[in-house]
Amino acid sequence: MALIFRKARAGDLATIVGLLADDDLGRQREDASRDLTAYQRAFEQIEADRNQFLCVAEEDGQVVGTLQLSFIPGLSRGGAKRGMIEAVRVAGDQRSKGVGRAMFDWAIATCRAEGCTLVQLTTDKTRPDAHRFYDALGFEASHVGYKLHLVQG
Amino acid sequence: MALIFRKARAGDLATIVGLLADDDLGRQREDASRDLTAYQRAFEQIEADRNQFLCVAEEDGQVVGTLQLSFIPGLSRGGAKRGMIEAVRVAGDQRSKGVGRAMFDWAIATCRAEGCTLVQLTTDKTRPDAHRFYDALGFEASHVGYKLHLVQG
Repeated sequence: MALIFRKARAGDLATIVGLLADDDLGRQREDASRDLTAYQRAFEQIEADRNQFLCVAEEDGQVVGTLQLSFIPGLSRGGAKRGMIEAVRVAGDQRSKGVGRAMFDWAIATCRAEGCTLVQLTTDKTRPDAHRFYDALGFEASHVGYKLHLVQG
Repeated sequence: MALIFRKARAGDLATIVGLLADDDLGRQREDASRDLTAYQRAFEQIEADRNQFLCVAEEDGQVVGTLQLSFIPGLSRGGAKRGMIEAVRVAGDQRSKGVGRAMFDWAIATCRAEGCTLVQLTTDKTRPDAHRFYDALGFEASHVGYKLHLVQG
């Protein structure tokens, strides 16, 4: 397996949205009609923020996975910079082949190179497979992740 | 209670670090010697990132609370922008007077004004009082919060 990790380009957008939607929870959350307008706007905001790294993993020129890294400066824990990992997906036909593990090795190394002393993520309570994966990587399930949905007027 | 919410200034740094340390978990995490060098560097990084808002709550010219807001653009959930809340503290002599509630009302309104459709935070599993507070605000404890500590250098 020879994976390449690179910043997502505008041309990857439909592929990434497809990956996000190809998931038990994602299916309910993403826009099935695949009107990309809202995703396009979000992509531009990600591009404009140098503390965001939307990553795709590529094998033989094909996108096989995605995740987003956010680098978050903060005062707590002695002024620790945090790396946050969100929106992790591996293509359906590429699962259980070590792609996720390789993506996390890359993500953690990238956080370290950015000066982070903490990597954090939240995962839905209904994803036991993900929990086993993060436990095995050495992550500690020390926190409760709270979400509040806002309706925009 | 007439609280003012404003962006933290460099002159607030020692006060904010004092608030972060005045807490059961914070006491172990913050630098007891109060050498502010690392905090100063982190503060500059926060200042340089327009998606970070380090807030202090002031009453009668005195800082009584702090929290950090991070605005995070992302593709998932239909291109939802997230507001993340970290490092929440209310001064020891100001607790149980509604300061925390007012800070959260401000934080949620600010996230809404920034176009966020999701507000998220993680809180240590050992903080049952905080859990009750977030539950009462309508947050859903839907996720597990994982952390991985990195050693630099």
